[in-house]
Amino acid sequence: MAPVKKGVLERLDAGEVVIGDGGFVFALEKRGYVKAGPWTPEAAAEHPEAVRQLHREFLRAGANVMQTFTFYASDDKLENRGNKLSFTGAQINEAACDLAREVANEGDALVAGGVSQTPSYLSCKSETDVKAIFKKQLDVFVKKNVDFLIAEYFEHVEEAVWAVEVLKQTGKPVAACLCVGPEGDMHGVSPGECAVRLVKAGAQIVGVNCHFDPMTCVEAVKMMKEGVEKAGLKAHYMVQPLAYHTPDCSCQGFIDLPEFPFGLEPRILTRWDMHKYAREAYNVGIRFIGGCCGFEPYHIRAVAEELAPERGFLPAASEKHGNWGAGLEMHTKPWVRARARRDYWENLRPASGRPQCASMSVPDGWGVTKGHADLMQQTEATTQDQLKQLFDRSKSH
Amino acid sequence: MAPVKKGVLERLDAGEVVIGDGGFVFALEKRGYVKAGPWTPEAAAEHPEAVRQLHREFLRAGANVMQTFTFYASDDKLENRGNKLSFTGAQINEAACDLAREVANEGDALVAGGVSQTPSYLSCKSETDVKAIFKKQLDVFVKKNVDFLIAEYFEHVEEAVWAVEVLKQTGKPVAACLCVGPEGDMHGVSPGECAVRLVKAGAQIVGVNCHFDPMTCVEAVKMMKEGVEKAGLKAHYMVQPLAYHTPDCSCQGFIDLPEFPFGLEPRILTRWDMHKYAREAYNVGIRFIGGCCGFEPYHIRAVAEELAPERGFLPAASEKHGNWGAGLEMHTKPWVRARARRDYWENLRPASGRPQCASMSVPDGWGVTKGHADLMQQTEATTQDQLKQLFDRSKSH
Amino acid sequence: MAPVKKGVLERLDAGEVVIGDGGFVFALEKRGYVKAGPWTPEAAAEHPEAVRQLHREFLRAGANVMQTFTFYASDDKLENRGNKLSFTGAQINEAACDLAREVANEGDALVAGGVSQTPSYLSCKSETDVKAIFKKQLDVFVKKNVDFLIAEYFEHVEEAVWAVEVLKQTGKPVAACLCVGPEGDMHGVSPGECAVRLVKAGAQIVGVNCHFDPMTCVEAVKMMKEGVEKAGLKAHYMVQPLAYHTPDCSCQGFIDLPEFPFGLEPRILTRWDMHKYAREAYNVGIRFIGGCCGFEPYHIRAVAEELAPERGFLPAASEKHGNWGAGLEMHTKPWVRARARRDYWENLRPASGRPQCASMSVPDGWGVTKGHADLMQQTEATTQDQLKQLFDRSKSH
Amino acid sequence: MAPVKKGVLERLDAGEVVIGDGGFVFALEKRGYVKAGPWTPEAAAEHPEAVRQLHREFLRAGANVMQTFTFYASDDKLENRGNKLSFTGAQINEAACDLAREVANEGDALVAGGVSQTPSYLSCKSETDVKAIFKKQLDVFVKKNVDFLIAEYFEHVEEAVWAVEVLKQTGKPVAACLCVGPEGDMHGVSPGECAVRLVKAGAQIVGVNCHFDPMTCVEAVKMMKEGVEKAGLKAHYMVQPLAYHTPDCSCQGFIDLPEFPFGLEPRILTRWDMHKYAREAYNVGIRFIGGCCGFEPYHIRAVAEELAPERGFLPAASEKHGNWGAGLEMHTKPWVRARARRDYWENLRPASGRPQCASMSVPDGWGVTKGHADLMQQTEATTQDQLKQLFDRSKSH
Repeated sequence: MAPVKKGVLERLDAGEVVIGDGGFVFALEKRGYVKAGPWTPEAAAEHPEAVRQLHREFLRAGANVMQTFTFYASDDKLENRGNKLSFTGAQINEAACDLAREVANEGDALVAGGVSQTPSYLSCKSETDVKAIFKKQLDVFVKKNVDFLIAEYFEHVEEAVWAVEVLKQTGKPVAACLCVGPEGDMHGVSPGECAVRLVKAGAQIVGVNCHFDPMTCVEAVKMMKEGVEKAGLKAHYMVQPLAYHTPDCSCQGFIDLPEFPFGLEPRILTRWDMHKYAREAYNVGIRFIGGCCGFEPYHIRAVAEELAPERGFLPAASEKHGNWGAGLEMHTKPWVRARARRDYWENLRPASGRPQCASMSVPDGWGVTKGHADLMQQTEATTQDQLKQLFDRSKSH
Repeated sequence: MAPVKKGVLERLDAGEVVIGDGGFVFALEKRGYVKAGPWTPEAAAEHPEAVRQLHREFLRAGANVMQTFTFYASDDKLENRGNKLSFTGAQINEAACDLAREVANEGDALVAGGVSQTPSYLSCKSETDVKAIFKKQLDVFVKKNVDFLIAEYFEHVEEAVWAVEVLKQTGKPVAACLCVGPEGDMHGVSPGECAVRLVKAGAQIVGVNCHFDPMTCVEAVKMMKEGVEKAGLKAHYMVQPLAYHTPDCSCQGFIDLPEFPFGLEPRILTRWDMHKYAREAYNVGIRFIGGCCGFEPYHIRAVAEELAPERGFLPAASEKHGNWGAGLEMHTKPWVRARARRDYWENLRPASGRPQCASMSVPDGWGVTKGHADLMQQTEATTQDQLKQLFDRSKSH
Repeated sequence: MAPVKKGVLERLDAGEVVIGDGGFVFALEKRGYVKAGPWTPEAAAEHPEAVRQLHREFLRAGANVMQTFTFYASDDKLENRGNKLSFTGAQINEAACDLAREVANEGDALVAGGVSQTPSYLSCKSETDVKAIFKKQLDVFVKKNVDFLIAEYFEHVEEAVWAVEVLKQTGKPVAACLCVGPEGDMHGVSPGECAVRLVKAGAQIVGVNCHFDPMTCVEAVKMMKEGVEKAGLKAHYMVQPLAYHTPDCSCQGFIDLPEFPFGLEPRILTRWDMHKYAREAYNVGIRFIGGCCGFEPYHIRAVAEELAPERGFLPAASEKHGNWGAGLEMHTKPWVRARARRDYWENLRPASGRPQCASMSVPDGWGVTKGHADLMQQTEATTQDQLKQLFDRSKSH
Repeated sequence: MAPVKKGVLERLDAGEVVIGDGGFVFALEKRGYVKAGPWTPEAAAEHPEAVRQLHREFLRAGANVMQTFTFYASDDKLENRGNKLSFTGAQINEAACDLAREVANEGDALVAGGVSQTPSYLSCKSETDVKAIFKKQLDVFVKKNVDFLIAEYFEHVEEAVWAVEVLKQTGKPVAACLCVGPEGDMHGVSPGECAVRLVKAGAQIVGVNCHFDPMTCVEAVKMMKEGVEKAGLKAHYMVQPLAYHTPDCSCQGFIDLPEFPFGLEPRILTRWDMHKYAREAYNVGIRFIGGCCGFEPYHIRAVAEELAPERGFLPAASEKHGNWGAGLEMHTKPWVRARARRDYWENLRPASGRPQCASMSVPDGWGVTKGHADLMQQTEATTQDQLKQLFDRSKSH
């Protein structure tokens, strides 16, 4: 039997760094197991070997958390998906839990059950209805006894609060992440205020994930931390950003960029960008540091290598990676061997090889202003009344 | 028992498109199983599940060829590697064959045993010595009964010719690829002349792999084809380029770019770039179309999707990919749904999100001119005499 | 005799657009008459034909204001210049007035005498000393009877206030411009507060000039206007920005960019950028709209052409310029004729032809933060005590 | 009386560097005196002070040649112009000669009378007709006794040869420039062959002007020189390129770039680029080195400063320009003073400040291939027969 592992709160309370994994949806899309558009995680049941392998690579890269591959696995989302799946929502959620647990047991990792925003909220279903959706996924997590819970990828803090309220009922530690930047949630609630609401709802760990690049996300979490501290509250902080540079995106994040989701390649962060991210996140006081869309195992390894002095050890995958390019000392060409040093990679400004492309995009017109949130939501709101109700509801807080 | 598959030459003779796989070394480096610098394939023995999974992803993406993960697995290379491995060269080569065969049997793919350039040649060992190195790897391929053989990643046509001469002794079909561009090999032998020499040595399939971006590689293979036809010879053609844009590199290809190998991200081709590549390769008469460093499974899927009309079917992984972004029709946001069309992606010029980076690099000084080939080779040549001998030898042709 | 012209305040009070000229220092540097570094205007006396011609070109382009070419023509600056000049400060200032008047009389333009920040202030001379410097230039302006006065290019609002106090004694209208952006002056005084102080000191027109690109300057003036209105005061507004794109500069503006002053070419605004600037400036309520460093006559013409509907006429130089490229209808090549239309030029994103250059720079380290203002000032402050005094003085307001 | 000056051939025969002036059409367009589209030089008669001043600035910058401002001043071109001019062709040509002579007499400069390609040739007028057009301008040059003649801006070597044949009749030295790059003239005649034809027709100086950036033009002239030497002929060489970076243009040069003519700003060469150009031109053996469209006086000064060691003196305008930025030693800010050194400016890669713009353009479709020359010429050819005749004629050589 495996020794009992320290829980996520014990680790954070002790000041340890907890390294998250990367975004399964994007990584598995590139590997051929997830469909961009619906973005649903049926691969957990359909192709378990592919999901297991990705878990293993993140574990090997240094991750302490195996998030169940249950993004957008709520029943309402799976039903919306268009073409019929061969597995039920419960089967997918259960399979995802089993895979995460199997790999977590191979190393020093915890299993985190994850829920995310629901079509039900966006189409103005009642608080009761939305909470029932979360509850259904949660039943699986309880049955499978995950180690803690993450509510992530919420554009509206109100819905995130509801999720936290449901997750809290389990007694397990709860983390909550919005997919927002420094401008705040889709109703303009500031990161600081969002964080305060989430902490008051019971989340022990708060932060942001997805939608923006690492430095922008760290900035948003910093604002959350300031808000929480100003309110005299206490929390731990987490960040799981994109692995794409997004200096040019508007309030909806990378969704609005013309390159989303099939032309983002030139924006992918290098491992050296990840070193800077990890250091910056650590410096502002974030201790749960992971990744979201675009993160590949080597990105997480770079986080683990940057924070190796703090953690006291390197990840397993560093056996295949020299520190700051040291492996190049064995390269055949002398001028490549000359690149085996930190300052070379730290100062490199990599070219795109695309002289007919600009460095910054103009985000799509629809998403440029917060006012457009109407249009966005209309599409899932059945009536104008529902839409109005949605906005009114958020103002009541 | 599986039905007997058509061999590679039968397919090419029949005018079929044969799709290759992608570059294992780079893909597995990102996954944490290969060390950049030595670039050796011990993962075949150490972490078979990771190698098997990557084979499966390429198979699922449409590849008809599973190349044994035996790049740089010659004994002289493995010994040069610096730190000791837990497996012998023979064990690694055998494990690689077994993995390729296992996955090939899961679909319509052939196993290709691969050899590549050797330190022995670069340090001026005799023809006999160099051939002995190839022979050793070949013994494994014969024992494991691979379907055909590929000599690839040769900078010097002379060494490639020696490799072909060795591989021919097996009676199996032989393909030969140089890692050169339109300027020819490291001694300035033109692509056309290189191809003629390889065909005369017995290669049935000739082409280029690695070092340059797809369009540059296709151009070089086109020059090979013109040379072969002008000489009144016949051959099939293959191309397995980088998945990086390299308009700015010098004769040594991407090795010379300052971004090699840890800052190449902004140069990664999109799937839409791959459509253009596959079409262009097909149009110039190349029928064995695959990839090398930087290719991920979704890149090969894009090749297979572009050539689906010619092949008559889509690859398995297309179940998770709408044609030209059609899957986005199911996206939540309406302005993302508006991107579900071919002309959107065909005309997109993706931004890098890196405003402080240029679009083109200046290749490293050392590699800018062919004259520097001296310096490069000195590093593995023990004496100046050996170096002189190496150059003299090549001139004797 | 020329009919009496309407004064600048009469024009602005009547809601007219007053168009300024461009920056003489940079334009004449390119023509060979001003030395970059000292940036002094001795050409007014040394090469009057060159200065006269530039005045004429701006007049012809639509300018209503001929600023005397007296930038940095205070005695303390001319003395600091290093190499001895053949003319006294008084001679240079007088020659500049005569040239401006001569050309102003050729059209509908007013003469504005200009003073700018002094080395005396930066080296902590007393208010009395600094004011004496301004007074000396002012004596010439009074003698030559300029139409109004402009205090411009002040980094410190305190010194600008002193200048305004001196200029007010003449009874002539006074305009005052700081060379600051939205972050405010070098002591962090916000644009709104700066404007309030200047208006209270007696300036009838306030705004910014130099240091930042048009859109940034317009934004800063908008903040000034909001400040003035919030304080219940009244003023007219002016803007005379750079003709360089500077999205990447820090609080000191383009001085900090690595390209300053001899590599700014890729940043030069097109005439179409100027249309956007003129419209934006007009829309936020600015009515005195001109230019500073980098502006050539065709830039001012573009401002005049954009605002022709409001002004009711085109400038003289438009006889040689078709509206929105209409002149191209007479070009030899048909595909160039196809560019004779507004939307072509409005939407063009011009390439730099410099693939090895980035689009944004990192400003020089020294200037990155306001804290560095110390270092900057030390260089002209004789002692630390003087420096301390300078800062203390600014805080007393 | 001025001492008799050495003629252009005496200077070149003696190995002296002859510095040309810059492009008047573009410079005066920006100053408000030339209309883009027709590009005709009526300003010589309409606004002589503006033309005189520009001559003076180039003289002061180091130019030894004052080209008469007679570009496109052939009668057929002036008539095509659309709106009626107040001066006849003869008046314009005479005024241009007088201005050039007046300023040439102020320094060590010669007057060169210039003719350029004609609408008559492009609309397939006979050799006799086309030559008559040149003869008419030439009569003015003879009457005004210019020092030598330049036939420049010819896309078709055939027409240039005709021009040379006419100009030769005067007995004055004749220079001939095509506006072509390394790909040769519009019928694909190589630069080497073009030069041979021009020399055989009697040109003593041959070269290229306009259409391409300096390095491309120098390359084309180098090819001309190789052609002439291979043919056993002798000539002097000249180059007068654009001051715009054009790495991305097709065979028609900058005309095809989408930025032509009103969005070229980001491509303008810095003075430091000009140093490299002057050195490269000198190194390949070109001794008549000047500029065309985009050149401002400071660009010519940079040429003269780079070649000061060879010429033995600096130009007059260098009194306002420190060598390699030395004037900055007098700048107020210390970090700007730190830029007063050669290696700073030599290595600077200037940013565009335009993050949403690419570095390279795609030339307009019409001009991409030589085949499109048809379409281009059709527009001035009245009938298809004329067009056919035009092409046939060129092939007869």
